[in-house]
Amino acid sequence: MRLRNVKNKEEILNNNSYVVKDCFQYIGNWKNEFKNDSPIHLEIGVGKADFIINSAIENPDINFVGIEKSASILALATKKIPEGLSNLRLINIDATEVEKVFSKEIETLYLNFSDPWPKKRHARRRLTSKDFLDRYEKIFKNKKIIIQKTDNSILFESSLISFSQNGYIIKDISLDLHKKEDYHNIETEYERKFSAKGNKIYMVKVEK
Amino acid sequence: MRLRNVKNKEEILNNNSYVVKDCFQYIGNWKNEFKNDSPIHLEIGVGKADFIINSAIENPDINFVGIEKSASILALATKKIPEGLSNLRLINIDATEVEKVFSKEIETLYLNFSDPWPKKRHARRRLTSKDFLDRYEKIFKNKKIIIQKTDNSILFESSLISFSQNGYIIKDISLDLHKKEDYHNIETEYERKFSAKGNKIYMVKVEK
Repeated sequence: MRLRNVKNKEEILNNNSYVVKDCFQYIGNWKNEFKNDSPIHLEIGVGKADFIINSAIENPDINFVGIEKSASILALATKKIPEGLSNLRLINIDATEVEKVFSKEIETLYLNFSDPWPKKRHARRRLTSKDFLDRYEKIFKNKKIIIQKTDNSILFESSLISFSQNGYIIKDISLDLHKKEDYHNIETEYERKFSAKGNKIYMVKVEK
Repeated sequence: MRLRNVKNKEEILNNNSYVVKDCFQYIGNWKNEFKNDSPIHLEIGVGKADFIINSAIENPDINFVGIEKSASILALATKKIPEGLSNLRLINIDATEVEKVFSKEIETLYLNFSDPWPKKRHARRRLTSKDFLDRYEKIFKNKKIIIQKTDNSILFESSLISFSQNGYIIKDISLDLHKKEDYHNIETEYERKFSAKGNKIYMVKVEK
């Protein structure tokens, strides 16, 4: 996502109750932060956070944690969160740090319109590379579920290969999600924009 | 493929040296028919046979067997085969009969633009359904390789799920094969026609 520098981003994040500042102290104990035993779902790269906010609103019995590496984007996202959404937390960290923040407690991981890193020499940076799947091994609870959406065919192709070669089984897939029947789709802001341009949205749900 | 009745189809097939009439007698012993130990690749549903004829021409060290249920289509296909192609055989049987014709001797299976059977209630008829994958178990030698091409997203999606849920690993995949670099593609007649219309060609190579 294009970065726009938000001048007072640190102040915004520090003063927002949804943003967890000392996130590393909760590792393995996020249920204490949420004060319940509901399943915890994680989104890596929340962007403007439409997806995770609406997911949290629609699913009060699931706890949602979203991470975003850009403080500016996360600061913008916080402005959209309604009050009293007790099942939502946001963290300003990079994806490479997930294993320092979570341990055996995530049930579902969402990867929405992640940076495709289309050049071969950057393939390891894709959030579905083996390097990242190995990181996720440490944060998942028992059953490991990953749901990915993207409009980038290079990322989608390489993700399918990576999932398959690392033990994940495809449970559901769509090559044109917005035409898929019986699927309740919660759009991201990026998805709305690029779908309107005519881009097809790819989705895959895998499980291990 | 749309069927056009070829009146003298039986006569054409009976008189063509590439068409194996008593195919059931070779089960487990196709290398004797080819008189060598080259790997045997199978295409189910050869249609007008452009793919398998050109594959046989380009790969003299691989034996190619193609099956086609329509006698009319196979009769038309035979007209295109050049003389002296010793590594090609064609058979007029239905896909459900493969396990009666081959036993532990196929190394690679091609499924090109198979009937998509798009209705859910017909899903078992798709050549990548569990029913068919179970049949293929009996005809494959050791390593099982399936290479599928299609322009039908319903078939491609269900194939990916079926491969994944039946132990196949994705080795290569393309959501737009004609734009893929470093892939030597041998087109089918159907592929040429539908690609010219702007349809994207999907390809997946799986291995078990």
